[in-house]
Amino acid sequence: MYAGRINNLVESPVREILKVIDQPGMISFAGGLPAKECFPKLDYTALDSSHLQYGASEGDWNLREQVADLLRARGLNVTAAQVLILSGSQQGIDLVAKLFIEPGVKVAVEVPTYLAALQAFDLLGAQYCAYTGKRSDMSGTRLTYVVPTFQNPTGICYSQAQRKQLASDCDATGSVLFEDDPYRDLMYNECDRTPVCSYIKQSEWVYQSSFSKCCAPGLRLGYLVCSEALLPYLVRLKQAADLHSCRLSQQLVFNWLDAKQQSALAAFYRQRRDQFQQVLVQEFSDLADWQLPDGGLFFWLQLKQQYSVDTRLLLNEAIANGVAFMPGEAFYPTGFTPGSAIRLNFSHASAASARQGLRTLAGIFSRAV
Amino acid sequence: MYAGRINNLVESPVREILKVIDQPGMISFAGGLPAKECFPKLDYTALDSSHLQYGASEGDWNLREQVADLLRARGLNVTAAQVLILSGSQQGIDLVAKLFIEPGVKVAVEVPTYLAALQAFDLLGAQYCAYTGKRSDMSGTRLTYVVPTFQNPTGICYSQAQRKQLASDCDATGSVLFEDDPYRDLMYNECDRTPVCSYIKQSEWVYQSSFSKCCAPGLRLGYLVCSEALLPYLVRLKQAADLHSCRLSQQLVFNWLDAKQQSALAAFYRQRRDQFQQVLVQEFSDLADWQLPDGGLFFWLQLKQQYSVDTRLLLNEAIANGVAFMPGEAFYPTGFTPGSAIRLNFSHASAASARQGLRTLAGIFSRAV
Repeated sequence: MYAGRINNLVESPVREILKVIDQPGMISFAGGLPAKECFPKLDYTALDSSHLQYGASEGDWNLREQVADLLRARGLNVTAAQVLILSGSQQGIDLVAKLFIEPGVKVAVEVPTYLAALQAFDLLGAQYCAYTGKRSDMSGTRLTYVVPTFQNPTGICYSQAQRKQLASDCDATGSVLFEDDPYRDLMYNECDRTPVCSYIKQSEWVYQSSFSKCCAPGLRLGYLVCSEALLPYLVRLKQAADLHSCRLSQQLVFNWLDAKQQSALAAFYRQRRDQFQQVLVQEFSDLADWQLPDGGLFFWLQLKQQYSVDTRLLLNEAIANGVAFMPGEAFYPTGFTPGSAIRLNFSHASAASARQGLRTLAGIFSRAV
Repeated sequence: MYAGRINNLVESPVREILKVIDQPGMISFAGGLPAKECFPKLDYTALDSSHLQYGASEGDWNLREQVADLLRARGLNVTAAQVLILSGSQQGIDLVAKLFIEPGVKVAVEVPTYLAALQAFDLLGAQYCAYTGKRSDMSGTRLTYVVPTFQNPTGICYSQAQRKQLASDCDATGSVLFEDDPYRDLMYNECDRTPVCSYIKQSEWVYQSSFSKCCAPGLRLGYLVCSEALLPYLVRLKQAADLHSCRLSQQLVFNWLDAKQQSALAAFYRQRRDQFQQVLVQEFSDLADWQLPDGGLFFWLQLKQQYSVDTRLLLNEAIANGVAFMPGEAFYPTGFTPGSAIRLNFSHASAASARQGLRTLAGIFSRAV
């Protein structure tokens, strides 16, 4: 007999898709996988053996100091003592969910939103309200989870006015702001990226980001910073979850940050985005509508009325034809009618593979109706 | 406003103590820290860049195969597909707790037992029964959590008869067996270490262990294996918790296992245990009773009647005098009267430091009454 929450535990479509994308020849637009060409050269020769021992639940102090420096440069007025190193930013979602969510608690989220956040919130019994930019959206919510900068899956980036509005709405309603900011370094057109949490005056808040996109996901390292009252709880929850994060990863990331040169990452991905956009215009103009994303890793294609289908039903056919995509339906919280849309990652596939894969996909979608 | 479970979230005494033991000159008998002399030489030159990318929630396949080989050699008839790689074995406790525990669920545990397991179970509202080796102890329990081999904190190792009895009691009552086995490689006197789970015939079960003690805790890597019905749930819970474990650690541990020589670890720690025992006999014979542990990392000292105190009250004085120990009270579940006992780790301090620290500690305890 399982705990009641297990009834809310759904299989993640991402995980299932990630299993097949390693097959030779598979062209994957599914996950948010960095291009392997962009992986950093990490310096293993500089490691000492201190990283082999147990460490603090909060994270290594020198890395926390570096992260606090990064955060202050973004406009968040925080100290190293407020920083909690995470085993990837998914862990931050798990910890914040444990702190706030229990059956019936209302959470305001963008619709659509990051599916693995929904998975973690669902498990603990969350109910959802759509955050559409209005204060009344937050009425009765305990938590507001947003990805204001290059949102996953839509790629939207909030304007400065929208950021200030959101912060003031949290202050007014008391909804705790949970800002997830993993994509900020992947900016291709100039945007305001000031953390919304920096505008908060009264409400409690949590801001988190990740080293998965700017450094390497395999290291499983992220970080959060939060208003003072929350940290002791999040630290205890972290300890009960995994004692502390991998110290080898912490030391490697510390050295990598310390030696950081101007990153070529955004330039590389901007080119991939532009190539992808070119092919999309050729192949999908009749089928779907989309915006060129200013940053992040995804195009979000909304199928035109006459091509509107449940895109999950086309995934197996696509995979059988050597192309993986992410059905848009997975990004809609329970209780909301999913739109007919697909999320396409443009960072992982080469230009030639992208062209071939998009052509295959367009064929499948146009034949489907 | 927090979720109700946060009322059950207590600060861990271990975490607080771990903060002070890094102070220069501190002699720590508190944590289960491996000796730095025993850390492996890991081969960073053999790494390829594949470990930088996202990976499977279940873990890297080649490591899962190796772990299945290890487990079969221990008597567990399992395949690689049943293995889940963990971000340290604390994560296994978090995942299994999420699967089974909700407010009011009864869990049978050894009294005393591993305090960070209690922390994770408490959070989700567990109630406790003492497992004392009798079938009736498990009546009405959903889960039975045990550390049968060099138990933490007592060092006890179950006999073969006790192991078979426990398995058959789980089968008879339907209580799910959760066997935690992190210390098995640290054996100093020959003992039966057959996993209790290998004797299970009907009940569901989870067996977990760790690379923290035999390799290096800073890598944060452990693993679990379980009866078939449970794995899909635990994999989904793992994904919602941190997507997957550090792949750099996975690749290093794979290479380390692959190249493994006969380990000198047990010989090194046996010597430390024996030196520690010698000093204990000199310093603590009048104050406490204890058994020489056949394995693991700890001595468990029960203070004699006339020296019986709440040992938590002496911790600050000990730390002020440069010695950290673990108060035994922390290992007793809510609802049980804690005995007056202390847990002393013997693996971390050098022989000279151990002598000095134990003398200081004996002085504090004898003056306390």
